[in-house]
Amino acid sequence: MQVAIVGLGLMGGSLGLALRERAGATVVGFDASPEMAAVALERGCVDRVAVSLEEACADAELVVVATPVSAIADVVARIPGDATITDLGSTKGAVIANVPTVQRARFVGGHPMCGSEAHGAAHARAELFQGATWFLAPTVDSDAERLTALHGVVTAVGARPVVIDADEHDAIVALTSHFPHVLANVLATQVGDADVNGHRPLHSAGGSFRDMTRVAGANASIWVDILLDNRAAVLDALGEAQRRLGAVSDALREGDTAFLTDWIAAAGAARTESLAMAHRAAPADLHELLVTVPDRPGAISAIAQALSANRINIEELALSHISPERGGELRIVVAGADNADRAVEVLRADGCDATASPVVGGAS
Amino acid sequence: MQVAIVGLGLMGGSLGLALRERAGATVVGFDASPEMAAVALERGCVDRVAVSLEEACADAELVVVATPVSAIADVVARIPGDATITDLGSTKGAVIANVPTVQRARFVGGHPMCGSEAHGAAHARAELFQGATWFLAPTVDSDAERLTALHGVVTAVGARPVVIDADEHDAIVALTSHFPHVLANVLATQVGDADVNGHRPLHSAGGSFRDMTRVAGANASIWVDILLDNRAAVLDALGEAQRRLGAVSDALREGDTAFLTDWIAAAGAARTESLAMAHRAAPADLHELLVTVPDRPGAISAIAQALSANRINIEELALSHISPERGGELRIVVAGADNADRAVEVLRADGCDATASPVVGGAS
Repeated sequence: MQVAIVGLGLMGGSLGLALRERAGATVVGFDASPEMAAVALERGCVDRVAVSLEEACADAELVVVATPVSAIADVVARIPGDATITDLGSTKGAVIANVPTVQRARFVGGHPMCGSEAHGAAHARAELFQGATWFLAPTVDSDAERLTALHGVVTAVGARPVVIDADEHDAIVALTSHFPHVLANVLATQVGDADVNGHRPLHSAGGSFRDMTRVAGANASIWVDILLDNRAAVLDALGEAQRRLGAVSDALREGDTAFLTDWIAAAGAARTESLAMAHRAAPADLHELLVTVPDRPGAISAIAQALSANRINIEELALSHISPERGGELRIVVAGADNADRAVEVLRADGCDATASPVVGGAS
Repeated sequence: MQVAIVGLGLMGGSLGLALRERAGATVVGFDASPEMAAVALERGCVDRVAVSLEEACADAELVVVATPVSAIADVVARIPGDATITDLGSTKGAVIANVPTVQRARFVGGHPMCGSEAHGAAHARAELFQGATWFLAPTVDSDAERLTALHGVVTAVGARPVVIDADEHDAIVALTSHFPHVLANVLATQVGDADVNGHRPLHSAGGSFRDMTRVAGANASIWVDILLDNRAAVLDALGEAQRRLGAVSDALREGDTAFLTDWIAAAGAARTESLAMAHRAAPADLHELLVTVPDRPGAISAIAQALSANRINIEELALSHISPERGGELRIVVAGADNADRAVEVLRADGCDATASPVVGGAS
């Protein structure tokens, strides 16, 4: 099978690697940036680089458009021949709406859910799609056999194809990705802008603020496009968030402790369910270790090494760095009560202050 | 100086340690739980344990109320003698409003800003307050000399006293702590409750969702009290958040890219300023490393060790665990461009996929 990949960044590059290694495909790549194309070639993401979009697509059975979402429609309009066309954009409704009528039969939208903060073919890796959900959103005119063929390609690179309506797809990613980004930016700007009689709250913000604003300020050139592209679904999520903030406000005004208690419990249950899905573990198996870490080179290394030497895998980990004088707290998620107990034992034997508790029911 | 500490959890216990080690104080402790008191005694947090609140306060010059915020007023009302009284509660307006009139001259509210997720005297450490802002909120009737004396005690344990109006204090902590908690719970419940035609968005939520919901579901018995105690300031923050979500919604509806671009940039700047404050580094000095981590025991250990061996301190670190098959991405903040470059070199020499970029301008 010959595949053309247009756009050789992290996603396009990784798909090229995966198709070559796992599906025995011949991959011809094109990128508007010759430098990016050269990196992709050097990394083995493509068999060869074409000098134009048209040349890349000649003889291809499948064309994958892996450009930023705002460029997809223009690229799709220019693809010659009869190859099946798909894309990797993070929204689907707007992309499909902009596919020219003549191309609709051969177009099937796609979106592999393998979030990464890395960029560029330099970070490409064949296993990026392994085990990931890969949404396939056909147009109303998509040929069924093309959808079936694409389904096979997605499976071949190790992902799990899920055929979905474009609007449903957009509602899901609005909630799981776009909405959290908006909330992070709202939190960062609201706290950043605040001035309480000359006191800057931002300057006493702690670890929970920084956890929650890690994605704040993310690449504006990409995110403005994503939010506008998916505006209908994002607006739904923001409206719902306003309503929920209103409900919490009402409960606070009314002193409704039952509402607040239930609401916090539901939040903890959702977090635990999400962690369990990510780690393919039963919620009850997940345990969180809390370890006090002195602020000096080697402290984290010693802790990670002690766990590693005891074959305890770190499922999730975060350091809340409190201050240079006080060090910080390391929160580590491990699967299995036995692993959690053993970890505490090992860390205490090393002189660390460590405790473990089940994640179920929420962190305390 | 003799100090009584009522409530021997993490904060009370740590203060006892610090007062004994750094201020040469004699500390008498009391806790409603004899087990907790025993742990505090064993850890050296107190010189001795009293059998009652009244006995603990006899002969004390200073009484520190380190109970949960909902119990503070009752405890304060019962404190005999003429000792200066302070508390460590995370809200100040409601606490002060509930101090009985007869006790107001000798009461000065306090709140050390040294957030921790640990609990109990077992985690107590003398350095907990080192370098931390410690808000002091006098009542309108507080004796000036008692405020001055308390200022000295706070300095003696290594913290930085900041005298502040109770309402200003409450507005600050509402923004930096209570509001982020509410947002985390709103995000967790909104995504958790969603069902898009049988698809559960929660099940495809990724790393940014989990970063932002780390505090979701936190100890309801504590948090309901905190939110209700500080409801006026929390309501202000929630109302402002609703307005800001509305402004973003308007910009999305109008396709106002200039607003969205500026807003994302402001969010990135706030995040960077907060990181710089926490690490006492110039914003321009902070760099973020992005490292691909295979999912196996020892992978994180090897990375931490490589940095440690090269004397590169990890300022902040988070693992986004993507899946058992694909491993995850480790994001590490280091101070200094030289450290960042050296870290990339060291990790690449070890066969890791690593890149570095300045934090300024926001993560990409």
